[in-house]
Amino acid sequence: MEAYFDNSATTRCIPEVVEAMVKIYEEEYGNPSSLHMMGVRAENAMKEAQATIADTLKCNPKEIIFTSGGTESNNMAVIGTAMANKRSGMQIITSKIEHAAIIEPMKYLEEQGFSVTYLDVDEWGMVDLEALRQAMTKETILVSIMAVNNEIGTVEPLEEIASIVHEINPQCVFHVDAIQAYGKLRIHPRKMGIDLLSVSSHKFNGPKGVGFLYVRDRVKIKPLILGGGQQRGMRSGTDNVPGIVGMATAARIAYTNLEEKQAKLYELRNYLIEGLLNLGPKEEAWVSIHGVTSQDEKGHKPAPHVVSASFSKVRSEVLLHALEDRGIYVSAGSACSSNKPSPSRTLQAIGLSKAELETTVRFSLSTSNTKEEVDYALEVLGSLLPMLRRYTRS
Amino acid sequence: MEAYFDNSATTRCIPEVVEAMVKIYEEEYGNPSSLHMMGVRAENAMKEAQATIADTLKCNPKEIIFTSGGTESNNMAVIGTAMANKRSGMQIITSKIEHAAIIEPMKYLEEQGFSVTYLDVDEWGMVDLEALRQAMTKETILVSIMAVNNEIGTVEPLEEIASIVHEINPQCVFHVDAIQAYGKLRIHPRKMGIDLLSVSSHKFNGPKGVGFLYVRDRVKIKPLILGGGQQRGMRSGTDNVPGIVGMATAARIAYTNLEEKQAKLYELRNYLIEGLLNLGPKEEAWVSIHGVTSQDEKGHKPAPHVVSASFSKVRSEVLLHALEDRGIYVSAGSACSSNKPSPSRTLQAIGLSKAELETTVRFSLSTSNTKEEVDYALEVLGSLLPMLRRYTRS
Repeated sequence: MEAYFDNSATTRCIPEVVEAMVKIYEEEYGNPSSLHMMGVRAENAMKEAQATIADTLKCNPKEIIFTSGGTESNNMAVIGTAMANKRSGMQIITSKIEHAAIIEPMKYLEEQGFSVTYLDVDEWGMVDLEALRQAMTKETILVSIMAVNNEIGTVEPLEEIASIVHEINPQCVFHVDAIQAYGKLRIHPRKMGIDLLSVSSHKFNGPKGVGFLYVRDRVKIKPLILGGGQQRGMRSGTDNVPGIVGMATAARIAYTNLEEKQAKLYELRNYLIEGLLNLGPKEEAWVSIHGVTSQDEKGHKPAPHVVSASFSKVRSEVLLHALEDRGIYVSAGSACSSNKPSPSRTLQAIGLSKAELETTVRFSLSTSNTKEEVDYALEVLGSLLPMLRRYTRS
Repeated sequence: MEAYFDNSATTRCIPEVVEAMVKIYEEEYGNPSSLHMMGVRAENAMKEAQATIADTLKCNPKEIIFTSGGTESNNMAVIGTAMANKRSGMQIITSKIEHAAIIEPMKYLEEQGFSVTYLDVDEWGMVDLEALRQAMTKETILVSIMAVNNEIGTVEPLEEIASIVHEINPQCVFHVDAIQAYGKLRIHPRKMGIDLLSVSSHKFNGPKGVGFLYVRDRVKIKPLILGGGQQRGMRSGTDNVPGIVGMATAARIAYTNLEEKQAKLYELRNYLIEGLLNLGPKEEAWVSIHGVTSQDEKGHKPAPHVVSASFSKVRSEVLLHALEDRGIYVSAGSACSSNKPSPSRTLQAIGLSKAELETTVRFSLSTSNTKEEVDYALEVLGSLLPMLRRYTRS
């Protein structure tokens, strides 16, 4: 049996998506910038993709700018906003648990003279709203907060953040990195007060190498990539029509019967968490779960697809490799940054101990995962853990 | 009958390429940054793609950095070099006939205080080497010249340019936009003295949305897109494995029996040019060809796949649409920038008259084009032109 539980790293492209792309690769391969019919048909395919995606966000199709993926979207949002608005102020606010695709552009902006405030989060990974309120000034040009944390699945209170941001400074741009949220949660940027929103296709069963940035009408940002002036000058380069159409197909499928899919994912997630907490003897906890485990008293709900767990006395890499030998794929830390084996910023920010940091593994689900796969993983863990715990160095 | 003669705008993805990608979309969909086997296999696929491409350039696989396409490669080369080397000097040299994906980043750098010299070209589109020699100083940090002009097919004397550049300033970085050349001509950057080289996959029957930048060992440039630190920090973002593998497959095919393919393209090109020049009555030239038509006395040869022609008294858009009605696809100006209907910089730089500028059409060939398609196009032109010439406004 195989069980791929690394869907927050990347997902399998679903057959409908591949089919839509193959048609374009082989038949409708025109360049949307060409004046002839092959170009016009390619342009129409792009417009249709824009409309499909706009439909999922309840926004205007013209507010969707296609990019090469989530990282480019985040870079464009952060650097593009800073460069377009620096005359209004040089202050930026973000959180301590953002993805590297936000943190690294922030560091770049700090080198350029911008001042960046990194907000704390609580033990569940929720951004400190009081700290946000205190940090906001009339010089704050950008606030960037993720929708769902990629490592522990915390859903940030975006509407509350938006209302604080725009109450204190109506001109301030509010960017949301929705890379782990889009396709899993309903997001209506206009209603929620979001100005910019980054999305990556391969996180919701679309192709790699494509994503988009929602740019709310009248929000001013500078383009990152310059050239032929495609997408009204906001993102030059021959449009990746097959990728764009593939992404739109995946988006349409993800948002069809979303509530059913969410219910399925929450059920799987709860089932997995329950199974994990039952591993080992009753008197001794072998596993602890990080972040919001289920809806709390304030109504905060975790994302439906991410489970972050520490396995006491078992280093995460050891567990990861023991599991892959049995065809079970999980991640240790966030795959997107695993080239740098430094301790996770998110797990540090929620206050994990060194022992917990070293033993945390992420399971991330998709709707194609099954209860049988979870059973299989729990069974394998049940037989592996007693052995692995014996080899601990502590 | 259909005849797609717009292969410099974009090409059809060949079946082997699509097949290689589908396998990855559906089966080997891991994230190369993941530590488990799915990730390792994806990483190996990327390394294999790097090796395949390095083989075509006779370079080290580590010198290949994958991007989202030619425009990103050009932006990264131009802006990345300027940002990494500005302490050594603020002067940059390029030509007047570069693609918008070079010219626009140059304009951006001018706003940042860099000084950019735009070299003239002669009537065949060849860069003025004497002007280059005079413009070069110890403060020149970057020279960027295209390998093959996208509108008229001129092949620039890259080796002569490289030797002038490095003779006057060994520290100066020489970048080549090879987007119209790669897959059609042999390019060995190290031997030719090229430090950076931009390539786009969809110009040689690979997928859209992917490209690469060759960065010669020890050449220092700054990354454009920041984040998880993929590709040794030079280009962050989840690697587009299917696109990269598709591009490498297309590259391997393009460079297999290249000389045969070139011979086929030159034959088609000459056949088309001859046919075009024979349109209309003997005493009156209906068509004139721009750029180097065949090898000149200095040994300069045109690219094998581009034919730029003016059809006197027939506006290019009118001809383009008349041809598309018969299933023949050509371009008026360069598709990559056709969103901006301004007169072509290249055609102005080679000294065309206003009448010629307004009547120029580009035919761009691929090895899948046939003599029969050329015959068909010539036949259609033969019947269309007498009628279209009557509707001229002049």
